Amino acid sequence: MAEKISFEAPRGMRDFYPEDMLWRNKVFDAFRASADLYGFDPYDASVVENYDLLARKAGEEVGEQIYHFLDKSERRLALRAEMTPTLARMVAQRQKELPFPLKWTTIAQCFRYERMTKGRKREHYQWNLDIIGEDSVLAEAEVIGAACDALRRMGLTSADFKVRVSSRKFLGELLAGSGIPAEKHAQVFLALDKRGKMPDAEIAALLRSGGLSDKEVDATFAIMDTKSFEACPELVELFALAEKSGFADCLVFDISVIRGLSYYTGIVFECFDAKGEFRAIFGGGRYDNLLTTIGGEPTSAVGLGFGDVVVTELLKARLGESAAKGRKGVAVGYMFPSERDAAVLVAAKLRAAGERVELALKAQKPKKFFSRADACSAAKAVFIGPDDVEKGSARIKDLETRNETDFPL
Amino acid sequence: MAEKISFEAPRGMRDFYPEDMLWRNKVFDAFRASADLYGFDPYDASVVENYDLLARKAGEEVGEQIYHFLDKSERRLALRAEMTPTLARMVAQRQKELPFPLKWTTIAQCFRYERMTKGRKREHYQWNLDIIGEDSVLAEAEVIGAACDALRRMGLTSADFKVRVSSRKFLGELLAGSGIPAEKHAQVFLALDKRGKMPDAEIAALLRSGGLSDKEVDATFAIMDTKSFEACPELVELFALAEKSGFADCLVFDISVIRGLSYYTGIVFECFDAKGEFRAIFGGGRYDNLLTTIGGEPTSAVGLGFGDVVVTELLKARLGESAAKGRKGVAVGYMFPSERDAAVLVAAKLRAAGERVELALKAQKPKKFFSRADACSAAKAVFIGPDDVEKGSARIKDLETRNETDFPL
Repeated sequence: MAEKISFEAPRGMRDFYPEDMLWRNKVFDAFRASADLYGFDPYDASVVENYDLLARKAGEEVGEQIYHFLDKSERRLALRAEMTPTLARMVAQRQKELPFPLKWTTIAQCFRYERMTKGRKREHYQWNLDIIGEDSVLAEAEVIGAACDALRRMGLTSADFKVRVSSRKFLGELLAGSGIPAEKHAQVFLALDKRGKMPDAEIAALLRSGGLSDKEVDATFAIMDTKSFEACPELVELFALAEKSGFADCLVFDISVIRGLSYYTGIVFECFDAKGEFRAIFGGGRYDNLLTTIGGEPTSAVGLGFGDVVVTELLKARLGESAAKGRKGVAVGYMFPSERDAAVLVAAKLRAAGERVELALKAQKPKKFFSRADACSAAKAVFIGPDDVEKGSARIKDLETRNETDFPL
Repeated sequence: MAEKISFEAPRGMRDFYPEDMLWRNKVFDAFRASADLYGFDPYDASVVENYDLLARKAGEEVGEQIYHFLDKSERRLALRAEMTPTLARMVAQRQKELPFPLKWTTIAQCFRYERMTKGRKREHYQWNLDIIGEDSVLAEAEVIGAACDALRRMGLTSADFKVRVSSRKFLGELLAGSGIPAEKHAQVFLALDKRGKMPDAEIAALLRSGGLSDKEVDATFAIMDTKSFEACPELVELFALAEKSGFADCLVFDISVIRGLSYYTGIVFECFDAKGEFRAIFGGGRYDNLLTTIGGEPTSAVGLGFGDVVVTELLKARLGESAAKGRKGVAVGYMFPSERDAAVLVAAKLRAAGERVELALKAQKPKKFFSRADACSAAKAVFIGPDDVEKGSARIKDLETRNETDFPL
């Protein structure tokens, strides 16, 4: 016998056993259905990307967190950490011919070599929705609306989650109104983004080291108490559109939403569970420099990233660990080898009618068959014995109600 | 503006633009539906694996074709080249608790660093079906039946493809009957697997270098003319089961099917297009050493691998390049900003009824709107003008039949 090697997945990577796939499929099916309902077109690319493309995105820690390697021709390749650079590359490649505005969606596995903490793995799947080449706030409304639709489709209600919305442009105007010049805003955004993660005193120090006077720091904190968005036409419009579209109950204005990424330029949003127990469920916003960073033509875009990890934790907490499980299909079994052909025919007939069939691969005692049928979460079961073959019919049993009906062989 | 960098995908890797995704989804949807119909449970794992696990599989060239790299803790990681080692690892990890026989399925992206030839990329997706822990030939029948079902679901008929079936055990018995000892069979299989790829004279040389006498080489070639499988009970049973299950018309016996991989031990099969224009569509067989290679308990298994590249080429050739395209959903547009709210309400109403809606993000002239609706392959279109809002109804147009019906706003 061969030497035993590790049966574990690599550190930080997930295995999906069938019971895990029930959850993953519940989440992915909602992603796909909601993207389709909102008219997004699927796209995808290989998880292996050019390192240069991924390293280009400045202002972040991503560079050193990328898994990268050389191929045999000394090309530097890497595993993507997010989909945005790939999206930018694909759009730039065909910028002259694509039918803008684009509404694109993907569910992309992304890798990031980071410290392992609760809920943070080194890979995750991220649902992406992007609308590229459209200035209208209706783009934000469509993206947020589709994401709220997905959460509802998974079984949550607007009481379970809230999308906090703000605008970097609005915040910029408020800062400018306090005399803080535009060139310092990017740094102010980055400092404010740490709020809640570090004490306000440290954030004040960060702001001062960014060149703000004590007075400007005070003004910045005062701005963070802004409760009304009436002075921001885009936000007024977004809330009105949400009202018409039926997801206004999911939205709240929150000036403190910044989003860590430096490329956002307009409306930004982040979704959290209403109880505040989990990390962000999804986040996104408007970004105008997607293509110029890599050398394409300028274009405005709205994007959303929605990971699979946090929402699955939230669903398990709110709906119960077994909520992804459901009975389906028909288990077909037989007592002796002499009934196998009858069972094979029954399976073929049921499948021709579109029924999932779990066909027993060998003769079994009834007890063993029914216990496996239950373990497989079959909805119904047909067990064929010698008598059934003789009289030309078997019974099909509903495993939930325990009702039996006759079934011709 | 930033320096321009390459917009191409890395060499050998595919981008999937929306029009490519139509094909991919057509193929993947069939994979998923057929696996479900046949009672297979989805599983998955990260594309990043432990290098040691992948390197373990002996007798093949895979070792040096794996993309591999070190993480920051000097762990050697790699991108999987196929799913089987991962499957073995996951099964071995829970061998005591899993409900055998397992029927598992996955669609896994796999990477192999190989020379680029027509149709060979450095990544592909492979649909896997495996039944683990079952000796019965019904396992082979279920796996092949599900794969044939997928091909039919994609729009092909049994006239378009044939599954060539043989048995390594049967071939081994025939070889033994000619006096060729069992310990030479593995080498004979590997030589015979090259048939069609190199001249018979070279294969004969390969056999002689494997220790076969001239007489034994002649006997081996004579065996390759075997036309009847009646002496092989497993094959007789498989064809009988295929008859009952309705896919016998897809099967042909072909003693020359060997399969390159050394781990097969029983029935082996390969599917080709009937005209012989493409590489293999899928292949598989029974393998008994899946778990022992990595240190798990012995178990018998049947597996199938079905790549996405060849079948997509075949479908395009047989069904036409546009066969994956279909009209769906409703495009909703409006002439002036004053009608936008009405359009948003119409979109919300249609979506609440489950309709995919492509909502125009700004006011447009009718001509522009309808031309985009056509480009988006919408099935229907609603365009709202000032008159429609006034009279409280709009027309919904079927873009195929050009019929119009009234629709209340």
